[in-house]
Amino acid sequence: MPDALPQLNPSPRLLLGPGPSQIAPRVLQACATPLLGYLDPEYIQMMDDVQVLLREVFETENEWTFCVPGTGMAGMEAALINVLEPGDPVLICVAGVFGDRMANVAERCGAEVTRVDVPWGTAVPAEKVHEALQSVQPKLVGIVHAETSTGVLQPLSEIGALAHEAGALFLVDCVTSLGGVPVGVDAHGIDIAYSGTQKCLGAPPSLAPITFSPSAVEAFQARKTPVQSFYLDIGQIWRYWGSERAYHQTGMINMTYALREALVMIHEEGLEARFARHRRNQQALLSGAQAMGLEPAVEDPAARLPSLTTLRIPEGINEAAVRGSLLNDYGIEIGGGLGQLAGKVWRVGLMGYASQRSSVMLLLAALGDLLKNERVDEGLAAAAALYD
Amino acid sequence: MPDALPQLNPSPRLLLGPGPSQIAPRVLQACATPLLGYLDPEYIQMMDDVQVLLREVFETENEWTFCVPGTGMAGMEAALINVLEPGDPVLICVAGVFGDRMANVAERCGAEVTRVDVPWGTAVPAEKVHEALQSVQPKLVGIVHAETSTGVLQPLSEIGALAHEAGALFLVDCVTSLGGVPVGVDAHGIDIAYSGTQKCLGAPPSLAPITFSPSAVEAFQARKTPVQSFYLDIGQIWRYWGSERAYHQTGMINMTYALREALVMIHEEGLEARFARHRRNQQALLSGAQAMGLEPAVEDPAARLPSLTTLRIPEGINEAAVRGSLLNDYGIEIGGGLGQLAGKVWRVGLMGYASQRSSVMLLLAALGDLLKNERVDEGLAAAAALYD
Repeated sequence: MPDALPQLNPSPRLLLGPGPSQIAPRVLQACATPLLGYLDPEYIQMMDDVQVLLREVFETENEWTFCVPGTGMAGMEAALINVLEPGDPVLICVAGVFGDRMANVAERCGAEVTRVDVPWGTAVPAEKVHEALQSVQPKLVGIVHAETSTGVLQPLSEIGALAHEAGALFLVDCVTSLGGVPVGVDAHGIDIAYSGTQKCLGAPPSLAPITFSPSAVEAFQARKTPVQSFYLDIGQIWRYWGSERAYHQTGMINMTYALREALVMIHEEGLEARFARHRRNQQALLSGAQAMGLEPAVEDPAARLPSLTTLRIPEGINEAAVRGSLLNDYGIEIGGGLGQLAGKVWRVGLMGYASQRSSVMLLLAALGDLLKNERVDEGLAAAAALYD
Repeated sequence: MPDALPQLNPSPRLLLGPGPSQIAPRVLQACATPLLGYLDPEYIQMMDDVQVLLREVFETENEWTFCVPGTGMAGMEAALINVLEPGDPVLICVAGVFGDRMANVAERCGAEVTRVDVPWGTAVPAEKVHEALQSVQPKLVGIVHAETSTGVLQPLSEIGALAHEAGALFLVDCVTSLGGVPVGVDAHGIDIAYSGTQKCLGAPPSLAPITFSPSAVEAFQARKTPVQSFYLDIGQIWRYWGSERAYHQTGMINMTYALREALVMIHEEGLEARFARHRRNQQALLSGAQAMGLEPAVEDPAARLPSLTTLRIPEGINEAAVRGSLLNDYGIEIGGGLGQLAGKVWRVGLMGYASQRSSVMLLLAALGDLLKNERVDEGLAAAAALYD
């Protein structure tokens, strides 16, 4: 043990990876605001604010809209374990790492999991879900809205309708979409949706916003066995977030401050403007990248996720070395590939506060430099044209 | 939805309740430090720092010493679910709310729970554990070191030895002791210990430091069924904290900054000095309170927890009104009773940064005022004498 550890002094970073995303200065300031107690009336008021603001961004009227005390993965787990009991049949759509994890978590609940697997880099066609529903009557159909491992945006309406026709709950992972892409919980008939704070919402990683429709709450209340987790038991968590205000765990006070501030920023910007901003910056990135000969890994333009873009690694490039130079020479973080796509793609997140013209232009310039790309001027011009 | 929500502007508070505790300015600043990515080499270095510093405060050589991504309750859950499988016999000592929760969580694992219950406000005598071990051969003996609901400090050595003689793992909840009271993981033969960041460690609520002895790791690795939780599966978490550095969940970056800074403060102060400070401020509080006629709820002086003191509510006092005035007129938070002790005690935490002479003197003066106590001068003098 050294006598003195170095001071906390991280290098400056522009976070353009799969998350955490760049945090706005006012949200960072919120993190450093002195703490209230977890039952302080002023803190309870802030929890109420967060619920109102979360309903706005989830686009729902669901009363049971709150935060699970953990990252997005805790949200996934809470979403599944509270409605599933051993032996329950479920249908999980798998088009990447996070769909696969959803199936894994459902299995740990003792559920009978039927998977609908599709090639990574594509969305799940409604027909494949329709087909699967011919041979299984699931309690729940689960799908990932924004697959962070592939950069695919999954259409929801048809699959949601199929789930309901089959009498199943419709569960959607919105970790990389909420706050950057329309989620429309009520419009799409989503029964359970969860997210993380550290992507398009623009707060640090810590909490998992979640919402349960009245049908999902009913399914929870009708269960015959206790939820396997006390920490993520939504009955317990709701005793704190709901009217009872009973102690369940010590609220993550300053992370709730940060989320509230980030949600106020979303409210001030307006959802439509925010979605348009995410879309425009991604279009600029894609235009610029393609003009430089960098191709998106998702073939179908309609399936490309505005908040996270996967780019194919050009032939003959040491992709890890490029990411290392981006980090060390430019202070820019982008992500490598995950799972099947490791070594094959880069993942560029333009989420929340980092979804800005300056992020796009700097990244293109930096990639142009590091790849010794001769068409960087064309790339920058193509990107800039999107802002005219 | 109002057009503009009020700015984040919490009233100033002196947090002398059961947690969260007061956060030092330099730890708050750490919370507002811009984020690194969760696999950034600089962040990995900080995780390594945290592990080294946690081993120091846990007083252990255990390699598997890291943080679970959640509050202290997540630590309790991770401690139990990773070593217990359905049908495993366990012995849980219950002397308050948190012992009771430990039994609850073990039951949700499907374990066969034998409880050793003792009256709240007392420690568990080793003889009662010895007696219980005559009729059960548990895989694990669990106990709370610092029972936050009663203010009792539990002696560990004898019970730890009994557990090991019976071939059981020894699990200890150190949520309200770690960093304020010696825990001595290796000296006491503790196999699994966990804590929360928001008590004596002096960081915001968010993470649960945890440590596993080689025997506990072996028990985890020998399990026949998967851990019921993916989020709290220590095999998965260790892939991130250990050498593999694989993605499990997005690290709570700025909460790790804060914990690191709080642990650096502990390292700089030194454990012995820190324990002495906690002890002295508690003695001053007790001397002052007793001189004013306020009696500790824990009869046995040796069983009184340095970090959290329970005081009996005097006859004829509206205890909630007093706590309300403390909060509104003085900005001081203290806790009410929990569970069986609701309405019967106040809980005063002198933890981490708030364990200071000024906290003690202000609280005594404020209580003197609000209770119209005629012996407040004696109380203040008795407390002040401890600092001579």
